[in-house]
Amino acid sequence: MRGIGVSSVRLEDGFWQPRREVNRNVSIPSQHHQCVITGRIDNFRRAAKYPDYVAKSFNGYFFNDSDVYKWLEAAAWDLAGEADFDAERVRMIDEVIADVAASQDADGYIGSYYVIDREKDRLTDFDKHELYCGGHLIQAAIAHHRVTGSTSLLAVAQRFADWMCRTIGPAEQGKKPFIDGHEQVEMALIELYRVVGDKRYLELAQWFIDARGRSTMKCGNVTPWHFQDHVPFRQLHEMVGHAVRAVYYASGATDLLAETGEQAIRDALRKQMQSMAERRSYVSGGIGSRWHGEAFGDDYELPNRAYAETCAAIGSVMWSWRTLLLDGDPSHADRIEWTLYNAVLPGVAFDGRHYFYQNPLEDDGKHRRCEWFGCACCPPNVARLLAQLPGYVFSVGRDGGAVYVHQYWSCSASIALAGTTIPVVMRSSMPWEGDVELRIGAAGSFALMLRIPKWCRQKPLVSVNGERVSSDVMPGTYLAIHRSWEAGDVVKLSLPMTIERVACHPYVTHNAGRLALTRGPILYAIESADHPGVDIRELALPADAPIECEMSSDLAGGVHVLKATAIHRRAEPSVLYRSTVFPETAAPVPLTAIPYFAWGHREAGPMQVWIRCD
Amino acid sequence: MRGIGVSSVRLEDGFWQPRREVNRNVSIPSQHHQCVITGRIDNFRRAAKYPDYVAKSFNGYFFNDSDVYKWLEAAAWDLAGEADFDAERVRMIDEVIADVAASQDADGYIGSYYVIDREKDRLTDFDKHELYCGGHLIQAAIAHHRVTGSTSLLAVAQRFADWMCRTIGPAEQGKKPFIDGHEQVEMALIELYRVVGDKRYLELAQWFIDARGRSTMKCGNVTPWHFQDHVPFRQLHEMVGHAVRAVYYASGATDLLAETGEQAIRDALRKQMQSMAERRSYVSGGIGSRWHGEAFGDDYELPNRAYAETCAAIGSVMWSWRTLLLDGDPSHADRIEWTLYNAVLPGVAFDGRHYFYQNPLEDDGKHRRCEWFGCACCPPNVARLLAQLPGYVFSVGRDGGAVYVHQYWSCSASIALAGTTIPVVMRSSMPWEGDVELRIGAAGSFALMLRIPKWCRQKPLVSVNGERVSSDVMPGTYLAIHRSWEAGDVVKLSLPMTIERVACHPYVTHNAGRLALTRGPILYAIESADHPGVDIRELALPADAPIECEMSSDLAGGVHVLKATAIHRRAEPSVLYRSTVFPETAAPVPLTAIPYFAWGHREAGPMQVWIRCD
Repeated sequence: MRGIGVSSVRLEDGFWQPRREVNRNVSIPSQHHQCVITGRIDNFRRAAKYPDYVAKSFNGYFFNDSDVYKWLEAAAWDLAGEADFDAERVRMIDEVIADVAASQDADGYIGSYYVIDREKDRLTDFDKHELYCGGHLIQAAIAHHRVTGSTSLLAVAQRFADWMCRTIGPAEQGKKPFIDGHEQVEMALIELYRVVGDKRYLELAQWFIDARGRSTMKCGNVTPWHFQDHVPFRQLHEMVGHAVRAVYYASGATDLLAETGEQAIRDALRKQMQSMAERRSYVSGGIGSRWHGEAFGDDYELPNRAYAETCAAIGSVMWSWRTLLLDGDPSHADRIEWTLYNAVLPGVAFDGRHYFYQNPLEDDGKHRRCEWFGCACCPPNVARLLAQLPGYVFSVGRDGGAVYVHQYWSCSASIALAGTTIPVVMRSSMPWEGDVELRIGAAGSFALMLRIPKWCRQKPLVSVNGERVSSDVMPGTYLAIHRSWEAGDVVKLSLPMTIERVACHPYVTHNAGRLALTRGPILYAIESADHPGVDIRELALPADAPIECEMSSDLAGGVHVLKATAIHRRAEPSVLYRSTVFPETAAPVPLTAIPYFAWGHREAGPMQVWIRCD
Repeated sequence: MRGIGVSSVRLEDGFWQPRREVNRNVSIPSQHHQCVITGRIDNFRRAAKYPDYVAKSFNGYFFNDSDVYKWLEAAAWDLAGEADFDAERVRMIDEVIADVAASQDADGYIGSYYVIDREKDRLTDFDKHELYCGGHLIQAAIAHHRVTGSTSLLAVAQRFADWMCRTIGPAEQGKKPFIDGHEQVEMALIELYRVVGDKRYLELAQWFIDARGRSTMKCGNVTPWHFQDHVPFRQLHEMVGHAVRAVYYASGATDLLAETGEQAIRDALRKQMQSMAERRSYVSGGIGSRWHGEAFGDDYELPNRAYAETCAAIGSVMWSWRTLLLDGDPSHADRIEWTLYNAVLPGVAFDGRHYFYQNPLEDDGKHRRCEWFGCACCPPNVARLLAQLPGYVFSVGRDGGAVYVHQYWSCSASIALAGTTIPVVMRSSMPWEGDVELRIGAAGSFALMLRIPKWCRQKPLVSVNGERVSSDVMPGTYLAIHRSWEAGDVVKLSLPMTIERVACHPYVTHNAGRLALTRGPILYAIESADHPGVDIRELALPADAPIECEMSSDLAGGVHVLKATAIHRRAEPSVLYRSTVFPETAAPVPLTAIPYFAWGHREAGPMQVWIRCD
């Protein structure tokens, strides 16, 4: 399959589009402001040796350039699909690009941490993110080029990529065999190859993947394992080490697979995906359970004081999308949907200016969203993903004979098929209700491939122009409707949403006797704000307690909440351990569960996803 | 109360004494060997500018001197109570002392990290452990002086302490207001004051405690909280931040309290102890749940993938002992006993040459004891504690009219009371059986204060010369027997040991529906080595299943194990989450629980303390 491009889809839904407008009007400008006031922009100006900046040294973390690149990428994608670009926004982007371009060394090297006052130390420390930053530059440049047609940033990125190709590679070619401790440049190089067609970029990306895994990356107490450097990629069968690195690595390798088709890479990726999906993911879709090292845990090591970095969830979406395009397995689209609602979205506040770095599934009220971070990878990562969301709705089968619908978000799209372009208008009330209408805007013969989400527990209904589609509609598959479509054809899809009590595998020992609540693609949580006078850790939801769903306009302009009668089991708090069961009093109490993404927006207090069920 | 000195008690028991002999014959020499081969000894020689060493730079972590000091302390205490010191051991100690002494600067400063090639940077970085290392030097010197009478190391320590007194202190006295990021020097200085009587040492220790808590300690992403620097001590009501630092800080403050009696310090310490004991300790007695920062977690944040550093448990013993001597509350002696068996002892292998740094309560088999660590704080810390164990058995009431028996370990002791010395011989089979015999060796009028452990669930029996003591014997108190004792009087004490199913407070959400097994002072765990073909995470021990205790000679030369019939609930491992309970098959299977301290000695495999009970 291939994607259809962010500019070809205009989201018009009541859930994501308002959030994208907050992203445009609040997050993107405020992130620019943060990059200004924290000296991230100034770093480029210092590297550029602007007269007013020349005496200053580098500011902040060595990888701070990457935040500016991710901001550029977000701002560029955000323009996609707009008939007229906002002039002020374009000016803002161009100004940053001018600073970035001016900071580039004559030989093409870019990276303000080294250019400002460490020129001679280039490529001496694998863990200084030089190529990681460069990869983000390339991704920003591609976005800017694709959306605006300009090559102002693309030329900068290509000069850096050319410098890499000349400088880095096998020693026997007289190059420096330098591999970045933080993967990311691999996928950027392959995308750059796709844009400009220069095969050296693909070859260098392949070399980075082939050369990694020789256990050379050590620093202090940190071992090669942290950097996915302990075994070569083709023998890497688990998701281990720093989670963002791991999913970016896998994403780059999936891009490589798309170009080379190499079976050994395919096999390793399949095992890595199984490792993540079947043994190392939270019920939210979040990944990377360890605070120590921001890392994947062992199998079933999923403590509810999760690290679950927002960036790692974003990386999971990126990897899942690449894998989906390659193998067409709808489980990846399921994961994208689930992860977006339940692991990425919690990372940004409704106001668009506060962020979670970590996403625990249980908290005592201390964990709150922040305006910015010293290590600020997450905020612009969320912004660039929200800006790209329209690209995740559809794809087209390789032969141009099939249109895949992965996400059911209201939108208008133009889908280029073999020899024709099909306008499609979609309407739904996702994620709250599962009724979807697709209106085909032009004639064409193709298969419409409708994802039937795995979360459907009852039989979905599908009709074309009011006529029931008779084929068996199976959750967890694409329903194929092969047809010569006419302009005005209407497809209706009804995906029943049921409230589910989700159990966790017993190997996750700490979730024994507990359940999580879901409805459709939304994971729920209980929060103390809805339970005055009750410690929510003392709430138990009996297995047979009825649960109702209702609209609540109090939160985030309207979300569906779940209501039930729970048992309040009050415990004596003075000792930690005792030789008999803790005496508890039991009284009925109303329970309200809110979407997990909405937690932490009211007065601070405990929150938990997994609820006692006895 | 006051302690009676390590040299006054000769342990003769079947549990600790063999381990102390392994400590003497294996751990202490092999730790010396590690200090040699890792360059820790060489660092002193380089600082001493020995001709062969002068070109070399510092080796390893900046705090590596402290390992050598702790080794010296262990080796010195280990000589205590011996009629003739082992000549080879004395030679080894003296050689190290000579290197240490030679490394000292003319002004008294000592610390090879700075002396070798950073002289000008002394006291510029609060997190380089300069005074922490110095504190360990002082403790080693005191041990060496107390046991041998020599002042060879004490003189070095005093010169360093004098340098501190001249150099560090309030700015208005023209001194440098420098506080170490890692507490430890406070308790060392107060002990030095007690030994040599120089009040400046006490005053400097007080200044360190008074001046801390101004939120000046920041480094990278690490905040003042990590260093207990976020609030002044008198407002510190929780155990927070780096756990070893926190308990060393509290230990020093308890020493200060013993000298000053200041109520505000007493109040803060009481709240800190409650915080640790009631909300932030593992069932093992281990403390410091977070891997990230080696830190205390929030209340009830006690994941079973515990960090629970061995050193933190040792610090808990040190603090508890100091508190016990001050307030006479037997709960501290209970904690010492429990922590020694279940949180310190797991830190060293039966062979005396492998160590745990972290002590998880649940593991998949990857966590194994190591011969040494880059950061090797734990091994010599265990060694110095084992060497000092005889000092934890008895204490004497301040007026000299009471003998407290805190631990029931077979031993011979000479207890100095007001005007007389009472020989006492104790016999028991602790920790496996609770029958204790105490034989008084000389006449004297005093109260014998017998700790009745809180773990007693049935009424203990006490007799003097065969005559039942009629007073009510309450677990969790000291039973006082006031009497004019005669030589040959025999006190018998029978502490019934029952197998207990321990429940965890429901706020520790992940232990819901699970129990831990204990008997007497021993915590148990299940390990895969005893359950071939069974994944121990699939074992459930029904609430009504009978549990038997039996001697097993297979492990550690003999331990008591627990046996029961459990239910093997086999689960389908292919998905992590599902909308119904996981289907399980149930079959009876034998369960064996071993003492937690004994885990990790056989083939690697899963271990867990908390066992499903349904």
